[in-house]
Amino acid sequence: MRSPVLNPAVSDFALDPALAASSLAVASLPLCDVRLIDDARFPWLLLVPRRSDAVEIVDLAKADRALLFEEITAASAALRAATGCEKLNVGALGNHVRQLHVHVVARFAADVAWPEPVWGSGAAEPYATADRERLIAALRRQLR
Amino acid sequence: MRSPVLNPAVSDFALDPALAASSLAVASLPLCDVRLIDDARFPWLLLVPRRSDAVEIVDLAKADRALLFEEITAASAALRAATGCEKLNVGALGNHVRQLHVHVVARFAADVAWPEPVWGSGAAEPYATADRERLIAALRRQLR
Repeated sequence: MRSPVLNPAVSDFALDPALAASSLAVASLPLCDVRLIDDARFPWLLLVPRRSDAVEIVDLAKADRALLFEEITAASAALRAATGCEKLNVGALGNHVRQLHVHVVARFAADVAWPEPVWGSGAAEPYATADRERLIAALRRQLR
Repeated sequence: MRSPVLNPAVSDFALDPALAASSLAVASLPLCDVRLIDDARFPWLLLVPRRSDAVEIVDLAKADRALLFEEITAASAALRAATGCEKLNVGALGNHVRQLHVHVVARFAADVAWPEPVWGSGAAEPYATADRERLIAALRRQLR
């Protein structure tokens, strides 16, 4: 029996090892894997479209781009609801890791990097297990 | 005679003075003013939705959010075409200036901040007049 026909852009996708190592799975949305950066200093999500070789938002297919923007909006709302943050920071940089990924970060005037961006602001401090599980559960409830 | 009824969200809009002072008008898209940051180190656009009191993308009306995402895409394509950059950086932070504005930055592996973000990377170096006018003209051609 022949294998079912798969969309190669989906089936070839593999999460970049550097992104995988620094973050934890939260949810799988229609386009993106949503992951939590393991850094208790900043509640910080990554959205990674499951599209192999995607680098720039502008180069996504139009339908994928529309999905990505919807999922950025959903993740932003979920993160704010779960954390009560004072400001959201959203960014797609990719200077270190080329695989397309979008950062959605919950910021507080009392956080250690405020008012500067979180990128490049010292070493991550992993969550205590209970804190991490509580935050991931709250995010999953919001994203359902 | 009574004044015509204006959309107050449009008519009350005033560009934040700090954004105005650091940038130059490039184009007026259906939602956003597009401006060039006056820093010859990085070709760098700001998109500012003409909506008074807008702070977070997620809080825009749905139709405005869709327009903003289209305009981010158009500005990204225009900036890359005008500069031949190696990477685009896109970000909405707003920690210093609350008025909603989106950064679209052309990055090169040879630029002075690479691979770190441009935000907080030292003092701006204003363009020479001819360089600035050439870049703005190229961006306007792309955005037409």
